[in-house]
Amino acid sequence: MTQPSITGKTRVHFLIGSPIAQVLAPGWLTERMRNADYDGMLVPLQIEKGNLESALPVLKAMPNVDSILITLPHKFGAAAFCDRLSERARVLGAINAMRCEPDGAWFGDNFDGAGLTAGILKTGRPIAGKKVFMVGAGGAGSSIAVSMLEEGASHLTFHDINKTNEQALRDKLDAAYPGRVSVGTHIPAGFEIVVNATSAGLRDSDPLPIEPSELTPAMVVADVITDPVPTRLLAAAGDIGCITRDGTHMLDGQIGLLFDFMVAHSKR
Amino acid sequence: MTQPSITGKTRVHFLIGSPIAQVLAPGWLTERMRNADYDGMLVPLQIEKGNLESALPVLKAMPNVDSILITLPHKFGAAAFCDRLSERARVLGAINAMRCEPDGAWFGDNFDGAGLTAGILKTGRPIAGKKVFMVGAGGAGSSIAVSMLEEGASHLTFHDINKTNEQALRDKLDAAYPGRVSVGTHIPAGFEIVVNATSAGLRDSDPLPIEPSELTPAMVVADVITDPVPTRLLAAAGDIGCITRDGTHMLDGQIGLLFDFMVAHSKR
Repeated sequence: MTQPSITGKTRVHFLIGSPIAQVLAPGWLTERMRNADYDGMLVPLQIEKGNLESALPVLKAMPNVDSILITLPHKFGAAAFCDRLSERARVLGAINAMRCEPDGAWFGDNFDGAGLTAGILKTGRPIAGKKVFMVGAGGAGSSIAVSMLEEGASHLTFHDINKTNEQALRDKLDAAYPGRVSVGTHIPAGFEIVVNATSAGLRDSDPLPIEPSELTPAMVVADVITDPVPTRLLAAAGDIGCITRDGTHMLDGQIGLLFDFMVAHSKR
Repeated sequence: MTQPSITGKTRVHFLIGSPIAQVLAPGWLTERMRNADYDGMLVPLQIEKGNLESALPVLKAMPNVDSILITLPHKFGAAAFCDRLSERARVLGAINAMRCEPDGAWFGDNFDGAGLTAGILKTGRPIAGKKVFMVGAGGAGSSIAVSMLEEGASHLTFHDINKTNEQALRDKLDAAYPGRVSVGTHIPAGFEIVVNATSAGLRDSDPLPIEPSELTPAMVVADVITDPVPTRLLAAAGDIGCITRDGTHMLDGQIGLLFDFMVAHSKR
């Protein structure tokens, strides 16, 4: 028996969702932990929609569990099991990460949008003071909108063909960031940062979510799609000379933020 | 980002107990899974005594969880959460492993004693038809007693200074294996297999649990203690010429049996 890689002292972190087979974060984050000489691992757990309420109290009560990451369909439901929420998580009503803090309380945050804004800031382009245009007001779009406004974007214009989602996000943002948000069309003229937060682009046959003829070289254009990379939209933006950020940059940015969040504290 | 070692498809197995920091099985069994090209891992979970009843139904309901190993203090409590039990688990009323079977039912078994009997059988010495002497009627001793009788030992004589444990085990064994069990002293004269299932030997200053002057070279002498190896008892037995099996042999035998049990089925 050689030196074991997992022992009883290994700190456990969970990623909960359903389905779960598609997630890749457990490998990436466990590898980061090892590279940082942190003895921990991220374990994927399939928890069905109706089982969240019974499962989360059980997972939180385990002394060797330090954090829980949350993917679909639990991002909204899990927020109710936190003792404290970040400002952006409170605005969104949804979390994708919660951790046990030194006082034993569980703190929830939402890094979906922060991964994208971190990726933009890494290029050296500021977000503060900039006018942002976004299509898509679902989970990813909502989180990106809040992160943009948190980072100091002067104004956010967005739209979604799903008018229920559009109105819901508008209501949330108007309450938290009054006067800095409006609903627009798919024409990105006059903006400095342009974001596709829809699934349009997953297939090459998808219509472009944003009118590319209005893009100009000074714009930063970002897309949430991780496959294909680049999407047709980003390929067009690159041809024009825009700085582009694809879904893998967003994911990479988020993995870094999640790592810091997860290993910052430990129950022992 | 390199090829992840854990993905959302990785099958999850738990080892539950409290305390949990001392367990080594997660590393050993995860390594065996990797060596067998089985994409799975064994994750240690600290579950406090009073939380078993809420935790086990939650863990069993996770579709990517295939088995649960159980250590102190949950071996008795967990048996109640199985739909089926092996014969030895039923006799003992305690399990150290449960798995989800193809029909969705959870099957519980107890390998604590089987690890020791497997270790003896591996030496080429039979158990069937032999007279066994054992000291210690706690959890380990109880499981070893049942495994010896299951393997066909003609008679088992045992004792424990804790008379409550001694009587409880005697009652269980008399019901399951009538006429094959008696309570004796610490003198191993006339037996073919001699087992120490007490903690005497953990410290060099411990009194010997078995009178070594009565050991003879034809005996097999086994001890459950993994550290130190050999114990003073096994060192004396080895000097006499007995075949000896120490706690690491028992552990190794059990790890092999647990591995087969855990990876035999999968929920998908």
